[in-house]
Amino acid sequence: MNLAALYHRPDSEMAYLVKKDDFQIRLRTGTNEVENVILYYGDPYDVTINDKKKQIWEYQVQEMNLQASTSLYDYWQLNVSVPLKRLQYFFKIKFRNGKEFLYDDRHIWSYSKTHLENSSGFRMPYFHEIDRIKTPDWVKKTVWYQIFPERFANGDHSIDPKGTLPWGSEKPSRTNFFGGDLQGVIDHLDYLEDLGINGIYFCPIFAAHSNHKYDTIDYFNIDPAFGSKKKFKELVDKAHERGIKIMLDAVFNHMGDFSMQWQDVIKNGEKSRFAEWFHINKFPVSYDEISLEQAENLTYEVFAKTPHMPKLNTANPEVQDYLLEIARYWIEKFDIDAWRLDVANEIDHHFWKKFYREIHKLKSDFYVVGEVWHSAQSWLDQAEFDGVMNYPFTDAIIDGIILNKINITNMMDALINNLMKYRDQNNQVMLNSLDTHDTARILTLAKGDKNRVRQALVFMFMLTGSPCIYYGTEIGMTGVPDPDCRRCMIWDKSQQDLRMFNFMKDLIAIRKKYSKVLNYSNITWSLVDKGNYSVELIRELPRCKVQSIFNFGKNNIDVKVDGKKILASNIGKNEIAPGGFIITVTD
Amino acid sequence: MNLAALYHRPDSEMAYLVKKDDFQIRLRTGTNEVENVILYYGDPYDVTINDKKKQIWEYQVQEMNLQASTSLYDYWQLNVSVPLKRLQYFFKIKFRNGKEFLYDDRHIWSYSKTHLENSSGFRMPYFHEIDRIKTPDWVKKTVWYQIFPERFANGDHSIDPKGTLPWGSEKPSRTNFFGGDLQGVIDHLDYLEDLGINGIYFCPIFAAHSNHKYDTIDYFNIDPAFGSKKKFKELVDKAHERGIKIMLDAVFNHMGDFSMQWQDVIKNGEKSRFAEWFHINKFPVSYDEISLEQAENLTYEVFAKTPHMPKLNTANPEVQDYLLEIARYWIEKFDIDAWRLDVANEIDHHFWKKFYREIHKLKSDFYVVGEVWHSAQSWLDQAEFDGVMNYPFTDAIIDGIILNKINITNMMDALINNLMKYRDQNNQVMLNSLDTHDTARILTLAKGDKNRVRQALVFMFMLTGSPCIYYGTEIGMTGVPDPDCRRCMIWDKSQQDLRMFNFMKDLIAIRKKYSKVLNYSNITWSLVDKGNYSVELIRELPRCKVQSIFNFGKNNIDVKVDGKKILASNIGKNEIAPGGFIITVTD
Repeated sequence: MNLAALYHRPDSEMAYLVKKDDFQIRLRTGTNEVENVILYYGDPYDVTINDKKKQIWEYQVQEMNLQASTSLYDYWQLNVSVPLKRLQYFFKIKFRNGKEFLYDDRHIWSYSKTHLENSSGFRMPYFHEIDRIKTPDWVKKTVWYQIFPERFANGDHSIDPKGTLPWGSEKPSRTNFFGGDLQGVIDHLDYLEDLGINGIYFCPIFAAHSNHKYDTIDYFNIDPAFGSKKKFKELVDKAHERGIKIMLDAVFNHMGDFSMQWQDVIKNGEKSRFAEWFHINKFPVSYDEISLEQAENLTYEVFAKTPHMPKLNTANPEVQDYLLEIARYWIEKFDIDAWRLDVANEIDHHFWKKFYREIHKLKSDFYVVGEVWHSAQSWLDQAEFDGVMNYPFTDAIIDGIILNKINITNMMDALINNLMKYRDQNNQVMLNSLDTHDTARILTLAKGDKNRVRQALVFMFMLTGSPCIYYGTEIGMTGVPDPDCRRCMIWDKSQQDLRMFNFMKDLIAIRKKYSKVLNYSNITWSLVDKGNYSVELIRELPRCKVQSIFNFGKNNIDVKVDGKKILASNIGKNEIAPGGFIITVTD
Repeated sequence: MNLAALYHRPDSEMAYLVKKDDFQIRLRTGTNEVENVILYYGDPYDVTINDKKKQIWEYQVQEMNLQASTSLYDYWQLNVSVPLKRLQYFFKIKFRNGKEFLYDDRHIWSYSKTHLENSSGFRMPYFHEIDRIKTPDWVKKTVWYQIFPERFANGDHSIDPKGTLPWGSEKPSRTNFFGGDLQGVIDHLDYLEDLGINGIYFCPIFAAHSNHKYDTIDYFNIDPAFGSKKKFKELVDKAHERGIKIMLDAVFNHMGDFSMQWQDVIKNGEKSRFAEWFHINKFPVSYDEISLEQAENLTYEVFAKTPHMPKLNTANPEVQDYLLEIARYWIEKFDIDAWRLDVANEIDHHFWKKFYREIHKLKSDFYVVGEVWHSAQSWLDQAEFDGVMNYPFTDAIIDGIILNKINITNMMDALINNLMKYRDQNNQVMLNSLDTHDTARILTLAKGDKNRVRQALVFMFMLTGSPCIYYGTEIGMTGVPDPDCRRCMIWDKSQQDLRMFNFMKDLIAIRKKYSKVLNYSNITWSLVDKGNYSVELIRELPRCKVQSIFNFGKNNIDVKVDGKKILASNIGKNEIAPGGFIITVTD
């Protein structure tokens, strides 16, 4: 009877408004210890006087649902509503040994009538719509395609930077250029529409020095090697015509050292009007270079260890105004739909709250996703981002399916614990990916095993969140971590893996068609074999059920499917071969 | 080995900046299960390449301290700093059975070198001073005195409301008046200075209909029965001259139904320019009265069930501007030092964040304390209030010392769990009280046992937080819950308990003198007897130790004291009699 395992946190991801009058309550207990949990709840002001002239609270009771289980925890969940938007609640927990406890805001104590009457409940004192965490609905129906602009397609040779290499002629280095540009993206919108994606996530496109453009020189201009503002407007408009949303990368943690502002600091030292824009410990600014991305004895703060990315002082109101102006500019003038926030975790909460407020004045369903590689409750708790780049999700799938570092149960534990850290509406718009411009490509991690890659992709697409594929994944591109994962997109059809392309096309179509059940339903899973190698996922809403079964092991597994098959690989009549999967639908 | 009891939450009250470069980390484990906890920490960008060409993080290690224990949990704590303000960390937990586990941001797994190298740490990505929770230092040295203005002293009969009764001639009812006013407070500033308090917390003083003034008519005027604005300015100035701070009560959840705004709604219905200031479901507004504070079939939202307090719509920008103007007005024109926020928990977070930002532009060390009777992490986590009215603290002491509903161990459990819900800087400015205008008086709860009351008061004053006494407690006043707890202050010295007064005077002087050790040090406690009836508290900083011992049982207890006795009651040579206590100091 593990009382110390009980956990509830009021007014958090464990107790929150899903919709206007729909309040979700979660409780954590130790695994497989609890028979049932009864929620006592109601309006705290609903009281009557009992025969002993004592004020007695008039509660309602309802049994909670066992929502999910991991090796350590059971998660219980219930949605309730109350007429006057005022809620008090506590839990009665019946353990499997028959003992009953009350868990309220002050105590965990043995169940008794006296304790019941004296309970001080947890509170959601009033359901304020203005405080409710809201996330954009369109993201829940979006499949993203991430483009590293220098490497997607060269559509205009007239703007190639000096020394541009023939497309794909060399491996990518930290310093080489292949001439990818916005015209190249426009030229391939038919391709992307055919693939079926409906959101493009662009790595930075603003004027910068490097090939990756994270060292911004001018946030108010498109990099000249990528094109003009006019060209960008054309791209956005043409994408929107096809129902494709546009997300840009906002690099606000730091600037490039070739920016006017930092150049002014170099020139004028502490007399620079930008001296307070950065975190400078000593003038003149200096460092000892070790390599392009490494320096020692820096007299100013930077991103990571690179002297070329001085960190911005976002507590300075001038800097705030400047960055907010940028954020607004690209929305107002170009109608972009989303900002991805680079190194978002190293910028202050104070700034992000302001940022979120300001941009939502312009576009109420704007999407904000932060680059946070670790758990991110404190950013998602209070309207700073809608979601984050879901690396804990990525790593669980890679460790479980691709690298077999953890077994399926441990993978599911990690995925479920990750979901339970956030409100449903945040989980539904997490940016889920298997690889990005910052990591090895998934096919490389899988050592070329395309069955594994297909399994991992299907697995990702079957789970809650907004899936994102990295350009070229759909045609079987490879690459070790950056810069190698930023190779030129392969446009020669004979070099493309067309089976992979058609598979992705089918998978994307399925995801969009069933986005509702795949984003809003509970995740039920079970092991298909005893060896912890094969798993079944069920996603189900009242009139729609999606079942998917995966064989990650080395032997065939027998399966029984309910609905009609909509996608499969490596399957026999009633069995799935190693590396195979099947998706069925009942609706 | 209770792995499910482990809990850590990054970027919360379990991981936060205390001072600029002083970061506190807390970990919860099951009680008495863990031998030691090692914190692995450092800059996440400090990496080297090992002989297998793998990137290895360069961490530091330090053992955590067992900070506090309860029946269910051990709380471990450590303060660290890092040169570049970027922190990654995880825990190695050695259980008493010898088994070691790593607890990081993704997993709880058996300790191994591989897992150590693959750990994904918790993160405080950057120490942002702008995000650090700051609370006013002066509150940590303040002893508050709460005044219910209608009942403290009648200093100006010329402004007595119609039907004012002779002072103390009757018991208080919901509707009677005795003429207490601001002049009465000014007249007794000598008394308060002699008592030693250095902060006055006033229940509402703005124009209102009732005797309690929670049904505001005009927030920009002092109630005419209390005095003028000039008189209030005189009071603030004279208090400040004596080093006494002034806190006013902001009733922003609702207005009085006699306010101009609500009267306009009654008159003009949905055409009223104030129709959107409230939460109205149907026009014309109506209700069926049951009593002064009870109604049914209300067509609008109210505080609790009372038709006379229509709830304000704080999501309406006009209402926000109006309330913020009030908040600023009394600071700018009258130099008040603190706002106590009535029914603060039922107003939206969005408003309170704005409120806190705005008033701190005027006075950086302004104190904000919210009326929240339950746990309040979500208000204290992000600069909405500095502290709350600490009713969980109140109830633990009342249940433990006054009513003996729980034993000392359970009382200490509740007090420690309550402390562990908040950052130290918030705990230091919690408004700690034993009774208020909303509860029975402490001497009444103690059934007249003044020894018990003294013990409870000393106990409160020995703990972290900003203690507050309710007017009259210092002279032994009694009263059951409101309205009876709002009796007229007794000014006839022959009717005052002068022993209690002198005791309070001594206790207040001790609290002020030792406020640093009593607010900043760790709380160490132990049972003195086996019967769980007597307890010793130790508060210790490098050059100062305060020891207090309490006998809550029925038999004498033998004690050994270290330092010099500074306050005591019911003690013998080496023993404390039932109802007694002793405070000693070593400095």
